[in-house]
Amino acid sequence: MSGVIVTGPPKADARDVEALGRYGVATVSEAMGRTGLLGPGLRPVQQGVRVAGTAVTVLSWPGDNLMIHAAVEQCGEGDILVVTTTSPSTDGMFGELFATALARRGVRGLVINAGIRDTQELRDMGFAAWSRAVSAQGTVKATGGSVNVPVAIGGQVVRPGDVIVADDDGVVVVPRERARETAEASEAREAKEAAARAAFLDGQLGLDRYGLREKLAGLGVRYVTYAEHTGESGS
Amino acid sequence: MSGVIVTGPPKADARDVEALGRYGVATVSEAMGRTGLLGPGLRPVQQGVRVAGTAVTVLSWPGDNLMIHAAVEQCGEGDILVVTTTSPSTDGMFGELFATALARRGVRGLVINAGIRDTQELRDMGFAAWSRAVSAQGTVKATGGSVNVPVAIGGQVVRPGDVIVADDDGVVVVPRERARETAEASEAREAKEAAARAAFLDGQLGLDRYGLREKLAGLGVRYVTYAEHTGESGS
Amino acid sequence: MSGVIVTGPPKADARDVEALGRYGVATVSEAMGRTGLLGPGLRPVQQGVRVAGTAVTVLSWPGDNLMIHAAVEQCGEGDILVVTTTSPSTDGMFGELFATALARRGVRGLVINAGIRDTQELRDMGFAAWSRAVSAQGTVKATGGSVNVPVAIGGQVVRPGDVIVADDDGVVVVPRERARETAEASEAREAKEAAARAAFLDGQLGLDRYGLREKLAGLGVRYVTYAEHTGESGS
Amino acid sequence: MSGVIVTGPPKADARDVEALGRYGVATVSEAMGRTGLLGPGLRPVQQGVRVAGTAVTVLSWPGDNLMIHAAVEQCGEGDILVVTTTSPSTDGMFGELFATALARRGVRGLVINAGIRDTQELRDMGFAAWSRAVSAQGTVKATGGSVNVPVAIGGQVVRPGDVIVADDDGVVVVPRERARETAEASEAREAKEAAARAAFLDGQLGLDRYGLREKLAGLGVRYVTYAEHTGESGS
Amino acid sequence: MSGVIVTGPPKADARDVEALGRYGVATVSEAMGRTGLLGPGLRPVQQGVRVAGTAVTVLSWPGDNLMIHAAVEQCGEGDILVVTTTSPSTDGMFGELFATALARRGVRGLVINAGIRDTQELRDMGFAAWSRAVSAQGTVKATGGSVNVPVAIGGQVVRPGDVIVADDDGVVVVPRERARETAEASEAREAKEAAARAAFLDGQLGLDRYGLREKLAGLGVRYVTYAEHTGESGS
Amino acid sequence: MSGVIVTGPPKADARDVEALGRYGVATVSEAMGRTGLLGPGLRPVQQGVRVAGTAVTVLSWPGDNLMIHAAVEQCGEGDILVVTTTSPSTDGMFGELFATALARRGVRGLVINAGIRDTQELRDMGFAAWSRAVSAQGTVKATGGSVNVPVAIGGQVVRPGDVIVADDDGVVVVPRERARETAEASEAREAKEAAARAAFLDGQLGLDRYGLREKLAGLGVRYVTYAEHTGESGS
Repeated sequence: MSGVIVTGPPKADARDVEALGRYGVATVSEAMGRTGLLGPGLRPVQQGVRVAGTAVTVLSWPGDNLMIHAAVEQCGEGDILVVTTTSPSTDGMFGELFATALARRGVRGLVINAGIRDTQELRDMGFAAWSRAVSAQGTVKATGGSVNVPVAIGGQVVRPGDVIVADDDGVVVVPRERARETAEASEAREAKEAAARAAFLDGQLGLDRYGLREKLAGLGVRYVTYAEHTGESGS
Repeated sequence: MSGVIVTGPPKADARDVEALGRYGVATVSEAMGRTGLLGPGLRPVQQGVRVAGTAVTVLSWPGDNLMIHAAVEQCGEGDILVVTTTSPSTDGMFGELFATALARRGVRGLVINAGIRDTQELRDMGFAAWSRAVSAQGTVKATGGSVNVPVAIGGQVVRPGDVIVADDDGVVVVPRERARETAEASEAREAKEAAARAAFLDGQLGLDRYGLREKLAGLGVRYVTYAEHTGESGS
Repeated sequence: MSGVIVTGPPKADARDVEALGRYGVATVSEAMGRTGLLGPGLRPVQQGVRVAGTAVTVLSWPGDNLMIHAAVEQCGEGDILVVTTTSPSTDGMFGELFATALARRGVRGLVINAGIRDTQELRDMGFAAWSRAVSAQGTVKATGGSVNVPVAIGGQVVRPGDVIVADDDGVVVVPRERARETAEASEAREAKEAAARAAFLDGQLGLDRYGLREKLAGLGVRYVTYAEHTGESGS
Repeated sequence: MSGVIVTGPPKADARDVEALGRYGVATVSEAMGRTGLLGPGLRPVQQGVRVAGTAVTVLSWPGDNLMIHAAVEQCGEGDILVVTTTSPSTDGMFGELFATALARRGVRGLVINAGIRDTQELRDMGFAAWSRAVSAQGTVKATGGSVNVPVAIGGQVVRPGDVIVADDDGVVVVPRERARETAEASEAREAKEAAARAAFLDGQLGLDRYGLREKLAGLGVRYVTYAEHTGESGS
Repeated sequence: MSGVIVTGPPKADARDVEALGRYGVATVSEAMGRTGLLGPGLRPVQQGVRVAGTAVTVLSWPGDNLMIHAAVEQCGEGDILVVTTTSPSTDGMFGELFATALARRGVRGLVINAGIRDTQELRDMGFAAWSRAVSAQGTVKATGGSVNVPVAIGGQVVRPGDVIVADDDGVVVVPRERARETAEASEAREAKEAAARAAFLDGQLGLDRYGLREKLAGLGVRYVTYAEHTGESGS
Repeated sequence: MSGVIVTGPPKADARDVEALGRYGVATVSEAMGRTGLLGPGLRPVQQGVRVAGTAVTVLSWPGDNLMIHAAVEQCGEGDILVVTTTSPSTDGMFGELFATALARRGVRGLVINAGIRDTQELRDMGFAAWSRAVSAQGTVKATGGSVNVPVAIGGQVVRPGDVIVADDDGVVVVPRERARETAEASEAREAKEAAARAAFLDGQLGLDRYGLREKLAGLGVRYVTYAEHTGESGS
């Protein structure tokens, strides 16, 4: 392991972070061309919470939370701590004491590609967290790692200062250079969805709204009655 | 993929559906001889909700929700949309816009053997859903599939018009021809369980109620004291 | 399968059980040197509940709950039923009727390394449970097994009479001979954590509190600015 | 469980089975419009073997091989035994003794959606098998099930008498009514692949052979140099 | 973690180990009443090899092979090294250098409930190994653990000196006190299987040999023709 | 999806690639500080083969191999094709026809974070491949993706032109800028291992060679006899 703690990374503009936080994870991902999601394995420990912030990244040895201690000092107002391990682990590397320290520093939440513990305490104190596992298994502080280097989770790269948005649907990363354009595209998408919602409430079908009848025909998808299809009689 | 949209399938009688909806998934499955369950992989996105309805089935390509659009038109009052993919997928093929369109048509819920998104919005609007994964990953509309053909989920076949009952314990399918007899058997089972519940509250043991002491003896299961078993002294 | 029902095992002292129940699962595990956890696969069916009790153990055939019936008779005030199967199974071996019988006997909860059903009913009646799966799949009563023999779950051995503590973070087993010392060590650990919490709220860093700066240096972990690290300019 | 042993099901024509056995699993599945596969979870216990035969199906209770005994009697020349369980199981339900009995009856192999054992002996005796797991865990003979009813494995329905083709790529089922047309379509596909193979050996690109350059352009996929894309200089 | 290296544990008698090594894993497990298997997750890195030996056990921290170094010194002629970790890990804790050291000491193989590497080299040198994963991921030597304490793998307890038998079907542990009786029971079972094999080759059915026709009838399993069952005509 | 095909990326120097190909995956990863591995999920479809080459990367939609067609044109002598999907997929996106086209262009192998098919044919033609799954499931050509963009697999980033080394232990990526230093460090490590191997053959212990006795003592790991530890008598 390289073993480096990188200080002072560039961060996405706070206004862009705030703007992105107005949209759900699904909307933000769609606005980036259906990219950026950290995968279905990361689940929230609470329900109904959305956060947006700038990533402070941690690469730790499995079963070892030494580098989270190092990362706390690099965290500040508006950050979200993003932790992964060098190989798959479910150990509970993070709990209420870390959350206490981070909350005091204005950190908005945790995304951990490993285990978490003290989940009831985290809910009680309102510290938002997304994890791959819940496990009370504690860890040691014996092996080096890195802070604020790029990390890869669920097929996505998260760099320090990138924007993280997380809600009940999962976690998305927006590269800091694309924060503004993504916020704008998210707004546009939400407007488009609002129009679709109104149309659907009014009874329109997606088949008609999106011109899919022609596509189905072009793909050779045919309509047949149940009786034609099975030889049995339908309703 | 065959690529067919089957219209007008027969459906289970609405009174039988209503009757089945009075019982939990476990009771209905027991009443069918412990069959019909779509497996422990399908979990609800809400808590404390039970629905019963008639299946409209969808077979989609992974990462593609074109056929759900086609299926919406085939859905009506009292239906439950049942979606699976031709190979395993966790993508979020279904979200709040689809739920809006379905709710307007009187659809009672969704069972999807893939991913779902907008879970908080679904809970807010009271649209019940069961899925294999929660994922914000969006999908394309590029490849054909089928609507209202038999699909297999978790080792069970679901045909259009079959009855779906779903609650916190999972999802069960009742073949439409067996809806009435299953409702009746569920009622009988519930009566039997009520009697057992009263007996257990009264202190009776299952060992005695079900004649299991003889069975244990017949299987060669012996009673020994802790001291006999280990050589250590017990309480 | 050995096929034995062991009666009258020794049990941990009730005062020690009560003492252990004052601490969370993570604290108790830490107090035992980070051991005793039954693994991240066991999840609660409710939220915000902690129980502590003495184990009555069951080793069952997959798809068969005969031995749970035998175990009910061995359960009493302050016990927790701990069930596993001879090979992996997700079947719903346990439901509301068993919970009714156990609750009447003063049993405090269930830990099952298999499936559970009637989850909403269990929550409604306040019967606490932790399981590997939720499944409505019912079981037969055909094959023998054992009650109150040592069982292994998640790499840990649970013997009858050992202490089980379970909460939202999972399940921990404390060998009955170590119950008192573990309760005392848990208390000491909680005091230590309270001091750390106060320090963290006051702004101290774990790096300083635990002397980790020297450790990082000794491991060769270096601090570098973002500009030094990447050649790009940071904030 | 319904508990029925169905005798004398119709079977696919032996010449069609033989014809299908000339093609690989991938070819047969493609010839059916990319359907029919029993999923990536079923793996061969040997390498380099392909079999084709008619299905005799078994639905067993987990941990119980009673119904395989019943099925042996229903098996004959040219059959393949197809076994699944009512809930997920990895137990080793099948071993060398069953293979001995089946081989004597002219059975060509086993497909089991559960565990298998005696794998070395099976290879030594040349009995082909595909399974979800390898496990020495033995089973009981205590609970009823069914033989020659439709079963669902990996999202596909297998009926008695349907054609099974299996090789190193997995297992495919061909409905008996579609055996002839699928054999013919497989032959056509193989001819098409032979032509493509020759063209590719000759240096042609799939991009040109299948007219994909236009498709890429239509989808908005652009070609850019590395320097344009990254600002760095490439080769 | 307790952190203890236990020296001089009792070991099963070498003649019993040798006797057990004459039987396959499935036979030995059956001879113990279908117990003792370390689960389907442990797979061999070679094919066609069977070993039997006495366990030297290791409990390691995930991502850390320090205790394997300590264990080498405790290993001698006829032993099998059995390694597990305090929480789930796939890291390649063991490779060709360890195998070299162990082979020189007369160790017969490795069973590791984690990852292994240098698999081709292990095959080349003829060192038998069973593991949960193959991974080149290396480990550190930073955290304590234990040698020759009881460990639990796959729901089974392995104590130092217990007999391990491993082949292509998996791994079984025989408690050292039960080695002789299990060897004898294995021999008896093998004789029984030889008789069954001969009968099956002669055309007898298990249904008749084991008296299962009555059992099926007693369970209510009925024989019906295909035509009766489906209304369709069969063969 | 961004939808870009990047041409002419820089590539690692061919002599460095050749040098790295002399070492196993484990050695190369160790030489990079235990980094670079694409995880235990990628397994070879053949045994005993090692390849090294420069990456051509593909990011595809699940169930769609259009972009592999586009990538073939970008592949040349000494390359290794590296494919991943935008969300998890096991579909058999790659088979013998692709291998034929790639082999003609001098491509050395395939690494695919999805499914593969025609595995026997690939072995017969000597085309090396590593995949997450084996599946005959075919794919469509309907949705755009990218070629020669950075992709993340198993927590590692692979950029076009980076060095891939793969053998029976898995797959490792070496950033092209670090190819030379990693080859040199691999050579140094192999020399060190050769010395250790000789010492171990000579009977030295790792405990002594690496000075671990002091470390164990410092960590509080104690040596106790079996009798002291258990109260039982040992050997």
